[in-house]
Amino acid sequence: MSDTFEASKKRSDDIRADLPVHPEKYTMLTGDRPTGRLHLGHYFGSIMNRVALQNLCITTYVLIADYQVITDRDTTANIQDNVYNMVMDYLAAGIDPEKTPIFVHSAVPAANQLMLPFLSLVSESELQRNPTVKAEMEASGHALTGLLLTYPVHQACDILFCKGNIVPVGKDQLPHIELTRQIARRFNERYGAVFPEPEGVLSDAIEIPGLDGRKMSKSYGNSIMLGATEAETAKLIKKSQTDSDRCITFDKENRPGVSALLTTAALCTGRSEVEIAEEIGDGGSGALKKLVTESVNGFLAPHRERRAAFENDLDYVRDVLREGNRRMNEIAEATLAEVREAMGMVY
Amino acid sequence: MSDTFEASKKRSDDIRADLPVHPEKYTMLTGDRPTGRLHLGHYFGSIMNRVALQNLCITTYVLIADYQVITDRDTTANIQDNVYNMVMDYLAAGIDPEKTPIFVHSAVPAANQLMLPFLSLVSESELQRNPTVKAEMEASGHALTGLLLTYPVHQACDILFCKGNIVPVGKDQLPHIELTRQIARRFNERYGAVFPEPEGVLSDAIEIPGLDGRKMSKSYGNSIMLGATEAETAKLIKKSQTDSDRCITFDKENRPGVSALLTTAALCTGRSEVEIAEEIGDGGSGALKKLVTESVNGFLAPHRERRAAFENDLDYVRDVLREGNRRMNEIAEATLAEVREAMGMVY
Repeated sequence: MSDTFEASKKRSDDIRADLPVHPEKYTMLTGDRPTGRLHLGHYFGSIMNRVALQNLCITTYVLIADYQVITDRDTTANIQDNVYNMVMDYLAAGIDPEKTPIFVHSAVPAANQLMLPFLSLVSESELQRNPTVKAEMEASGHALTGLLLTYPVHQACDILFCKGNIVPVGKDQLPHIELTRQIARRFNERYGAVFPEPEGVLSDAIEIPGLDGRKMSKSYGNSIMLGATEAETAKLIKKSQTDSDRCITFDKENRPGVSALLTTAALCTGRSEVEIAEEIGDGGSGALKKLVTESVNGFLAPHRERRAAFENDLDYVRDVLREGNRRMNEIAEATLAEVREAMGMVY
Repeated sequence: MSDTFEASKKRSDDIRADLPVHPEKYTMLTGDRPTGRLHLGHYFGSIMNRVALQNLCITTYVLIADYQVITDRDTTANIQDNVYNMVMDYLAAGIDPEKTPIFVHSAVPAANQLMLPFLSLVSESELQRNPTVKAEMEASGHALTGLLLTYPVHQACDILFCKGNIVPVGKDQLPHIELTRQIARRFNERYGAVFPEPEGVLSDAIEIPGLDGRKMSKSYGNSIMLGATEAETAKLIKKSQTDSDRCITFDKENRPGVSALLTTAALCTGRSEVEIAEEIGDGGSGALKKLVTESVNGFLAPHRERRAAFENDLDYVRDVLREGNRRMNEIAEATLAEVREAMGMVY
C-alpha cells in the first residue's frame, strides 16, 4: 500500500490544480512549532501560501504545535512568549481569525486523546522505520524520546481530528502523510468510515536561503525575523559574510553569501537576482547590503506595522487564541464522539 | 535510580502496615481491562482487596481500561457489554460508587492528554526494555503495536492524573510502577512539583487456580464467572478434569485438577484444602465436585442476587459510570491545569 514519490507528486499536482476550482472540497491543516520567532523563511516557505489558500476560501486551521517543542528538548522555556509572538505574526501576515482558527496542541484534549486508538493501529516497527524521525533525532543530538518516536502518530491526530484532507508538506514530510493515510484507512476498515485519507500537497515555494546561504534557521543565526526592528535587520544584513569581489554576480555555488542576499532582495521585490546584480554592478558588498536592507525593510514594513498594533493589544491576541481553541475543541469533541461511536465505546 | 525488588517489597510492606493507621494519606488507583467478564480469580485476587481498602476510607478510584483492550487486539467487539457487566460486578462486590468513582479511559480526555508530556520524559530504549511489555506481546501472538509499546506510559497517566500514590500490583507489574515513578520524578524536576511518586503495593492474596490448575483465565475456559448462573457454574465444575483416584487428597503437583477444586472450595468457605479433602475421603470426584459446586454457588449467591438487581436496572449502572466519569474529568482537568501551569503552557 506504500506510495511512491511519483504517485504522491502526481496527486499533489492534481490537487493544486483543483484548489482554485473546488475550494469547498478542501480542509487544510498547517502549523509551526513554537520554538522561536517566525522568520522570512517561514513567510515565503509556508505562511504566504496559507494566506493565499485561506483567501481562496479553503477551510484552513493553523496549529501552534506546543507539545512538539518537547519532542527533542528538555524545556518549555519562553513557550508562552513564542506562542503569542507566533499569533501576532500570523495575524500580521494576513491569517484572518474569523476564517481560520489559530490554536495550540495543549488546549485540545479530545484531539490528543486520539493518540490512544491511533497508536493501536501502527506497529512498533513502522514507528522505528520512519526516516524523518531518525533524521530529526540525529539533528537534535538528543536521545530518541518516546514523544519523538510517536510524533508522526500525534501529527495524524492533528490532521484527522479536524478531518483535514490536505496538508502542505516538504518532500521529507511525505512519510508522515503516508502514516496518517494508513492510520485513517486502518481505522475506517476496522471500525467504520470516520476519517478522510489526507493528501500531502508539495510546495513549489522558492526556498529563501539564510544570510550565509545555508537553510534559514534560527539555530544558525542567519534568519531575518519578521518581527525584528529595521535597525536589527540592517545590523544582521550588515554583518552577513560576503566576499571582496566588488562586482556583484549571482553564483550560488561560489558566492553563497552574495547570492543569498540577492535572493532575499529578489523575493522581497519580485525582481530577479540577475537583474538586481546587474543594477549594482561593481558597487560591491556595501551597495548590495544597502539594497537588500531597503528591500527587506520595505517589504516587511506593513507586516511590522500591523504586528506592532497587536503587540500593543495582547488581550486581543489572547482572545484570538482562546476563540481558536474553543472552536477546535468543538470540532475535536464531535470527532471523538464519532470515534467512540464507531469503536462501540459509548456507555 | 532503578529499584531492586527487595526495596520495592520493603516499601510495600511498610505501606501495608500503615494503611489502616493512616488511611487518609493514600490514594489508590486500580482497574481492569474490559476484555470479558470478571471471574473468581479477579474477585479473590483484587476486587475483595479493593473493597476492603475502600472501606478503610482510603481514596479509591476504579478504572475500566477500555483503551487497553486494543493494545493487542484488532477489535472492540462487545466492549460496551463488557464494561456494563464489569460495573455490575464491582457494585455487587461492594464497590460503593458514592465513595469510589468507577470510570473508563475513553471518557477522560484530559487524563489521556498527559501521554504527550509524559512520552517526552522517557526514551525509546526505556520503552523497549520493559520486560512485561515483551512478555505480553509474546503471549498475545500479535505484532507489537505502538499502543502496547507505550501503554506503561499510559498507565502512568492513569495513576498520576488522579495523584494516586499506591497501586496494588503483582510482581510482574513492578517495572510499570518504576516507570511511573521515573516519569513523576522527571516531570517534577524539569517543570516543578506536581505529581506524587507512587508505590506499588504487592498483593499477598492467595491466587485461585483455574479449574484445570492453571492460572484462571477466560481464554483457558477454566474460569468461574461471578455473573454465571448456578446451573452454568455446576456444569463447568462437572466437566472439569480430575482423575480416577477416588481418595481425594490435596496434591497440586500430581493432582492439579483435584487440588484446584479443593482450593476453590477452600477460598469460598474459609476452610483449608486438607480439611475438605479429609471430609470427602474416598467419595471420589463426584462428591468433590458436588461440594465445590455448593461452596461456590453458596458463596456467590449474595453477589449474584445483587448483580441481578443491577441487570434489571441498567439506567442505574449507566448513571454510576457517568457520574464516575464526570468526577474523574473534574480531577483530570484540575491536574492538567497544574501541568500546563508548570510547563508554562498557559495562553
